[in-house]
Amino acid sequence: MASKEEIAAFIAAEFPQTKCIVEKVGDGGATVWHPVGHDELRPGGTVSGPVLMSIADVALYVALLGEIGMVPMAVTTNLTANFLRKPAGDRSIVGVCKLIKVGKSLVVGEVYLYSEGSTDAVAHVVGTYAIPPRQG
Amino acid sequence: MASKEEIAAFIAAEFPQTKCIVEKVGDGGATVWHPVGHDELRPGGTVSGPVLMSIADVALYVALLGEIGMVPMAVTTNLTANFLRKPAGDRSIVGVCKLIKVGKSLVVGEVYLYSEGSTDAVAHVVGTYAIPPRQG
Amino acid sequence: MASKEEIAAFIAAEFPQTKCIVEKVGDGGATVWHPVGHDELRPGGTVSGPVLMSIADVALYVALLGEIGMVPMAVTTNLTANFLRKPAGDRSIVGVCKLIKVGKSLVVGEVYLYSEGSTDAVAHVVGTYAIPPRQG
Amino acid sequence: MASKEEIAAFIAAEFPQTKCIVEKVGDGGATVWHPVGHDELRPGGTVSGPVLMSIADVALYVALLGEIGMVPMAVTTNLTANFLRKPAGDRSIVGVCKLIKVGKSLVVGEVYLYSEGSTDAVAHVVGTYAIPPRQG
Repeated sequence: MASKEEIAAFIAAEFPQTKCIVEKVGDGGATVWHPVGHDELRPGGTVSGPVLMSIADVALYVALLGEIGMVPMAVTTNLTANFLRKPAGDRSIVGVCKLIKVGKSLVVGEVYLYSEGSTDAVAHVVGTYAIPPRQG
Repeated sequence: MASKEEIAAFIAAEFPQTKCIVEKVGDGGATVWHPVGHDELRPGGTVSGPVLMSIADVALYVALLGEIGMVPMAVTTNLTANFLRKPAGDRSIVGVCKLIKVGKSLVVGEVYLYSEGSTDAVAHVVGTYAIPPRQG
Repeated sequence: MASKEEIAAFIAAEFPQTKCIVEKVGDGGATVWHPVGHDELRPGGTVSGPVLMSIADVALYVALLGEIGMVPMAVTTNLTANFLRKPAGDRSIVGVCKLIKVGKSLVVGEVYLYSEGSTDAVAHVVGTYAIPPRQG
Repeated sequence: MASKEEIAAFIAAEFPQTKCIVEKVGDGGATVWHPVGHDELRPGGTVSGPVLMSIADVALYVALLGEIGMVPMAVTTNLTANFLRKPAGDRSIVGVCKLIKVGKSLVVGEVYLYSEGSTDAVAHVVGTYAIPPRQG
């Protein structure tokens, strides 16, 4: 319902700190890409957990916007992350979101996060966004 | 088992990006404090969810270190956050962690996050850290 | 807003399979008690995880009813359980719920589950109930 | 590593109360089937949340056994369920598990639960099993 360009502009306004690039959106899902550099690393050269969760949070919002259109006041109500493998310190993170429920008031989706080029997920996130009631 | 000063130095090294200040540690818990400024805010003047999760993650690690001593390779395996209320955009965040299990390989704790000065939590987090096996 | 007796009758109707006894309700929380016998045990004499989650689910509902009155169509939307210690096979389970958010549409609470007589929790659960909109 | 028949016998011994039938196992996943009758229903003719979580728990264990062989003492450490839609009261529940990490000490998987014949999931579960260290 909203184009990739509209959504990218919207995300840049809503999450001014994010470095996420919207790669793909539609069909009940989204793919985002996030560079990894000094700001994202912990000692040992691994991407920090909160960075992974923030990428998942953006991927979910992008997928949601792609499905139901621009909803500025949607808020995350619940997010569960499982950290699976140590991410590479020298590769970007790719987040692939699939929505699993698009309700009137709640949207639930899951996100697999990968070090670019790998097919083993570094983390898995399930999150819920609450959609504000639409005024008539 | 470790002093507040030792832990603060350790956290500064392990999480070089964090702005968290260790306020209290011991008795199976910890309290951390995090300033809120431009970097932490989303439009509407509210603290972003990933910032809250990162504070909870640090509070858990601080509590863990206070309980079992310096464990450099502990990693978060699971983190569940419930976002409860809109945080104030002009107040710091305080994270209060209580450990609920300190096992040999897994440590579980919960963290209540507050806008400073309020007693209504803005978020609640439960997280698990895996402790690497000790070499003999 | 609802008495312990009203709530006990309501729970018996809503969860006809539960063996939970309502012990206490009010002040934003509730305590329930559940016997442990053959039906609840796994080999090795431990209470199964799903039994623990079902007790937590009831404790949350009881606390919610105590806070906002009889709401027949409330449904669990999210539940996260951490299993902490092996429950005793010969002791009842006690579930102690504290609500952490009572909103118009979502109620969030946490539940500590204990083997009766012990102060070390066997499991910790955080759950969310969605409240149906009230008709005017 | 273990056949469907071996696993079915094992599950019957480990979870004596379960009504789950193992339909498929292998390739890092499993499918289980659970009948729905009076014991599983709540008023309004819907399957209770704890029943759904118990099916997911079994599906995870089945997938785990299929991957790493018979491990009698594996225990669930964490389970997060999102309830998405009202299950039909007159249809069986099918649980489809996919493992997302098979580590030496932790196994993580996700389970989609469906009312038989539907492709819209009624619930989604992510869970972690801890594997006991192998004696040499």
